[in-house]
Amino acid sequence: MNSAEQAWPEVPELRDEALRAALQHTIDRKTVPQGALGRLADLAQRLGEILGTASPQLVAPQLLVFAGDHGIVARGVSAYPSDVTWQMVGNFLAGGAAVSVLARQHGIAQTVVDCGVRHDFAPAPGLHLAKIAPGTQDASRGPAMTVAQCQQALANGVALVRSLPGNAVLLGEMGIGNTSAATLLAVRLGGLDVVEMTGAGTGLDAAGIARKTAVLREALAANAEAQAPLDALAAFGGFEVATMVGAVLQAAAERRVVVVDGFIASAAVLVASRLRPHVLQRCVFAHRSDERGHARLLQRLGATPLLEMRLRVGEGSGAALAWPLLVSACGILNETASFESAGVSDKG
Amino acid sequence: MNSAEQAWPEVPELRDEALRAALQHTIDRKTVPQGALGRLADLAQRLGEILGTASPQLVAPQLLVFAGDHGIVARGVSAYPSDVTWQMVGNFLAGGAAVSVLARQHGIAQTVVDCGVRHDFAPAPGLHLAKIAPGTQDASRGPAMTVAQCQQALANGVALVRSLPGNAVLLGEMGIGNTSAATLLAVRLGGLDVVEMTGAGTGLDAAGIARKTAVLREALAANAEAQAPLDALAAFGGFEVATMVGAVLQAAAERRVVVVDGFIASAAVLVASRLRPHVLQRCVFAHRSDERGHARLLQRLGATPLLEMRLRVGEGSGAALAWPLLVSACGILNETASFESAGVSDKG
Repeated sequence: MNSAEQAWPEVPELRDEALRAALQHTIDRKTVPQGALGRLADLAQRLGEILGTASPQLVAPQLLVFAGDHGIVARGVSAYPSDVTWQMVGNFLAGGAAVSVLARQHGIAQTVVDCGVRHDFAPAPGLHLAKIAPGTQDASRGPAMTVAQCQQALANGVALVRSLPGNAVLLGEMGIGNTSAATLLAVRLGGLDVVEMTGAGTGLDAAGIARKTAVLREALAANAEAQAPLDALAAFGGFEVATMVGAVLQAAAERRVVVVDGFIASAAVLVASRLRPHVLQRCVFAHRSDERGHARLLQRLGATPLLEMRLRVGEGSGAALAWPLLVSACGILNETASFESAGVSDKG
Repeated sequence: MNSAEQAWPEVPELRDEALRAALQHTIDRKTVPQGALGRLADLAQRLGEILGTASPQLVAPQLLVFAGDHGIVARGVSAYPSDVTWQMVGNFLAGGAAVSVLARQHGIAQTVVDCGVRHDFAPAPGLHLAKIAPGTQDASRGPAMTVAQCQQALANGVALVRSLPGNAVLLGEMGIGNTSAATLLAVRLGGLDVVEMTGAGTGLDAAGIARKTAVLREALAANAEAQAPLDALAAFGGFEVATMVGAVLQAAAERRVVVVDGFIASAAVLVASRLRPHVLQRCVFAHRSDERGHARLLQRLGATPLLEMRLRVGEGSGAALAWPLLVSACGILNETASFESAGVSDKG
């Protein structure tokens, strides 16, 4: 696997002390009390460092909804049937999904990516076809996909981001069963506990969560040897997660801002960060999902998300909801007057 | 005072069970897992109930920046000189303040209200002149204003909101020294502790906070008899707080959405809610400020704010920052497809 991993984009460390100091100076001279911009200043700093400028501007943001189905759903790990995945793809394309509404509100371009939905889609505007197979295999019996399929999905994600304009990517997904995949990845690669990490997903009750936990234990046992990042990704899936990992790597390599949504997107970022640790420098974590394991996963990633709205919608909805905060951070940096320019007295 | 209080707008309880049920039903049929919209659903519910419709639309939002000066600043309670108040008014009018940038981003109309700044302003676009006096008296020696001045400031706030279009008001303020006024109001009317409530304001150090606390104790003692809401408001000020209280009462009476900013706006809402308790039903609390006492004051108001960004800018910046979340809540309610309309399978 080592040589294959080397083929993924390089993501060097961002460490431009002069830029960092310039950003801090700009922030410190704004006509607000010293330090008063709080996390908005931290966000402005981060956006400036990612984009490599003291005057960051967000351009042509791209919301990517990676969709795929999961063989493990046959084991009863989800409250909804797999058919909801393809039905929701239709809903995204018609502009009726929650994230579609939010993307429209904020002028974010939405692309739905068929990474492996169990349904044949006709070509349609806003739909990117990158299907590996109609759903993964059941991870509770063995690997969800082959290593070759996993590599192809990663490559698809890389190619997709390369083809897109703009300097920011918002991570969304749709896939009945994908909290199972994300949980397994968090447990295996994050060293987290399967009981503490397994949650309701789309709405299991306590008994359902107990059943799901048992199935996930089987999946961990059935894929005991899958310890390296890409092996774990192939073992647990899904195609939409693997494609998202590729997209994250490429976006990070290009120094695009990566806006991380909820539990599944965070799991994809965990995988990407195990391949390329400095991916995390390019990430803005949008929200803390109400899905049980998300808080622990965020902690493992050292991330403090912008919003805590108790959402568990997925789709990229939390990323889209938080988007105007990023625009605000840039606006404050670029447009707010300084004490000098506004003729306002500084602290005595 | 009782007869005078009766002159302020009535704010009846909102209790339309049919509307509440209609909103809940609409939310429950959205193409997301049951309950997955979290606080966004709560927000949509509240906006629908305030505006009295199952399809709330926010129209012509008005950011009001109430400005005034405080006699108590002579006692060294602020890190910045009083002159910053009028200088910042100029900054707002020039569009260079943080809140001005945010208001522009979101298409929010900004009006600066001279409630009692220690400076003569020429008429200017976006400046509303409603000056009671050039700054309040020093509250540490006696009442900050007369009861008649307080009544006039309240009436000014009522008249201002009456004159404005739209169905949402965002509360902002500017006034060197006004965390002192807000702290005093929270202590007196909220039954909170002066030591726990006194914070850094625009940036006092620990010694400065200790001095400020001592001065605020003097103010409490010098106005020991000012226990009723309007008496306390007159005793502690400021003119911008009193004008804001009037604006809150009128906005609530008209069933406008009141978007509450940070510490000072919350103190104004506390005063308004002591006069008309159902004011709180019309409020959306935008953010938790980093100012020390704000968390306790929010708790006293039973409020859970949308954002926690460690801001302590004031101006209405937190309200403007949170504004797109309100727009999103309406958008989700009005535009997201239902399971039926989108042909998506519901939970099995």
